[in-house]
Amino acid sequence: MYQLELTKPDGRRITLFGRREIAQVGAVPSPRSEPVRPNPHYRWHPLRGEWVAYAAYRQDRTFLPPPEYNPLRPCTDPANPTELPTGEYDIAVFDNLFPTLALDAHDPPHLQIETHAGIGHCEVVVFTQDSRTSLGNLPLDHIALLIEVWGERTQKLAQTGKIHYVLPFENRGVEVGVTLHHPHGQIYAYPFVPPVPKRMNEMEAAYCRAHGRALLQDLIAQELRGQSRVLYEGAHAIAFLPPWARYPYEVWVAPKQARAHLFDLSEDERVDLATALKTVLMKYDGLWQKPFPYIMAWYQAPTDGVAHPESHLHAEFYPPYRTREKLKYLAGTEIAAGMFASDALPEDKAKELQAVQVRF
Amino acid sequence: MYQLELTKPDGRRITLFGRREIAQVGAVPSPRSEPVRPNPHYRWHPLRGEWVAYAAYRQDRTFLPPPEYNPLRPCTDPANPTELPTGEYDIAVFDNLFPTLALDAHDPPHLQIETHAGIGHCEVVVFTQDSRTSLGNLPLDHIALLIEVWGERTQKLAQTGKIHYVLPFENRGVEVGVTLHHPHGQIYAYPFVPPVPKRMNEMEAAYCRAHGRALLQDLIAQELRGQSRVLYEGAHAIAFLPPWARYPYEVWVAPKQARAHLFDLSEDERVDLATALKTVLMKYDGLWQKPFPYIMAWYQAPTDGVAHPESHLHAEFYPPYRTREKLKYLAGTEIAAGMFASDALPEDKAKELQAVQVRF
Repeated sequence: MYQLELTKPDGRRITLFGRREIAQVGAVPSPRSEPVRPNPHYRWHPLRGEWVAYAAYRQDRTFLPPPEYNPLRPCTDPANPTELPTGEYDIAVFDNLFPTLALDAHDPPHLQIETHAGIGHCEVVVFTQDSRTSLGNLPLDHIALLIEVWGERTQKLAQTGKIHYVLPFENRGVEVGVTLHHPHGQIYAYPFVPPVPKRMNEMEAAYCRAHGRALLQDLIAQELRGQSRVLYEGAHAIAFLPPWARYPYEVWVAPKQARAHLFDLSEDERVDLATALKTVLMKYDGLWQKPFPYIMAWYQAPTDGVAHPESHLHAEFYPPYRTREKLKYLAGTEIAAGMFASDALPEDKAKELQAVQVRF
Repeated sequence: MYQLELTKPDGRRITLFGRREIAQVGAVPSPRSEPVRPNPHYRWHPLRGEWVAYAAYRQDRTFLPPPEYNPLRPCTDPANPTELPTGEYDIAVFDNLFPTLALDAHDPPHLQIETHAGIGHCEVVVFTQDSRTSLGNLPLDHIALLIEVWGERTQKLAQTGKIHYVLPFENRGVEVGVTLHHPHGQIYAYPFVPPVPKRMNEMEAAYCRAHGRALLQDLIAQELRGQSRVLYEGAHAIAFLPPWARYPYEVWVAPKQARAHLFDLSEDERVDLATALKTVLMKYDGLWQKPFPYIMAWYQAPTDGVAHPESHLHAEFYPPYRTREKLKYLAGTEIAAGMFASDALPEDKAKELQAVQVRF
């Protein structure tokens, strides 16, 4: 993997990544000329026992681009700057223009509840220079590179000493609020382990103490024995609908052996994970012959400097559809009680996705 | 409060409630003639440590009504049965036709993960016979009656001995997936305390052990001293935007003194809570001069047979809009990490809602 770190005119960092040496990089653009100086803060939610982040400047966006403007394509016209330079590279990662969290956040407001500076980091990961493709349509070695980039960014963010959890994710489709269709994802880096991965880590740690093994690794071994919900099995990776799926088309992608972080993967594991990922994405788009929306999140171990033998890196896909026409709205029981209810069995949805033939 | 309990032709229960004696009730209808015999089940999500409910029959709905059909209005044409009889009553509560949970669920499937019969209860609360009004437009004593009905149903469900948590809620608006505009809500009754109220109860119990008082009661006292986020204050009730709001227009409605359950409220408290509720709802609809969508959930203490001095009954409103035109999509950080990020300060949103004049 080749990489080139650069600085934007407004002070933000951008890193270019390539499978081959990075060449002929044009001037580094930014849609803004003045420096971006966010100062978000956290407030403690005393009844949920969790932090809520406030980045109030985000509503003051003076920058109102025309609808056809794509800030994620390489900049060919300096009069209309985008976020990316021209050049020979595959993937770009840059600091979010309007981040929710900031590594140098300071002086939170005084309130009757506990507050804290909004420490953290938000970055955009542009998967490819090609606006018209999608993650699942990229070549295998390009997807494997992306997995390596996620690992590299996890390691770099951990090295700041301020970050205890790194979450790479992709929101895809207008159904989950995405209006910019250039293939891209985001990385959120938190100074604490957020509620969902915290709970996950507690469950994994309890199992590991009791059994001496990683929980998800044992569950994956069971799935492989049953095979009824498996979408892909390779030498190192698996894709399956978990029997505990909360969304009708929920799919998990994971290495078969527990790995704590994205940067712990070997080259072989990355390639096989890329194959699992591409298989799932092509099945999703093939199911109804149209782009399939989802939230994809990569859960890994905390970056808190201690070993995590209990943690098992994996991706979870949450697609918003329950049938071709019907969205699954999260409402009363899901949002207010936190108990998910599904009107579909994972076994039945697995059959639908297993029946979608993919070739690459 | 007057009430009349009846049985539908398909075996489901319906209870009518009135401020005056219930009279001239017509035949009790049902859109179905055959009995509804759901048998849902739970599966344990081993990494989140929570139950997921599966009611797979729900996709087999053979009943496909025309778009103008309103099952929640009183039935005046026996050839087109609805869910409600004609008659003089104010509110009706009936067993959901396609419930997610069922009190007599049995024989869960054997899987490699833990399963359990889908015990519980789901019911529909029709707020009024008038299809064209809304909760906030009902008279005060009608809203106070609804609060009493929620309390009555909580108590009745607790008396089954199978229910440890009762959640009354309303999903309002197409933005949260509701296509049926007749004013109504739902009640979910769980055999366990679901994740969100469980966490809430743990935080409240820890505070109560340390300070000997209810957490939310102390927080409300602070809000009343500050007043900057208060929308309504009466002798017994308050409505305010909490400083820890996760949604831009999130509002909480509560009695000032901690009450564990809806059925613990006095008549005076119910009337003042109804006034707080009506104030909030009229401000919501007045803000942009259009019906304001939301999820409204009433959190109360578990119905597990022990005293809950730590619990403080309250409603939380989660509106999906962040500005008049823009929805707040829950995506990467909210759904996958569980950390909410807001680009608006509760103090600013409180000013907007405080400025909306309401009169009733």
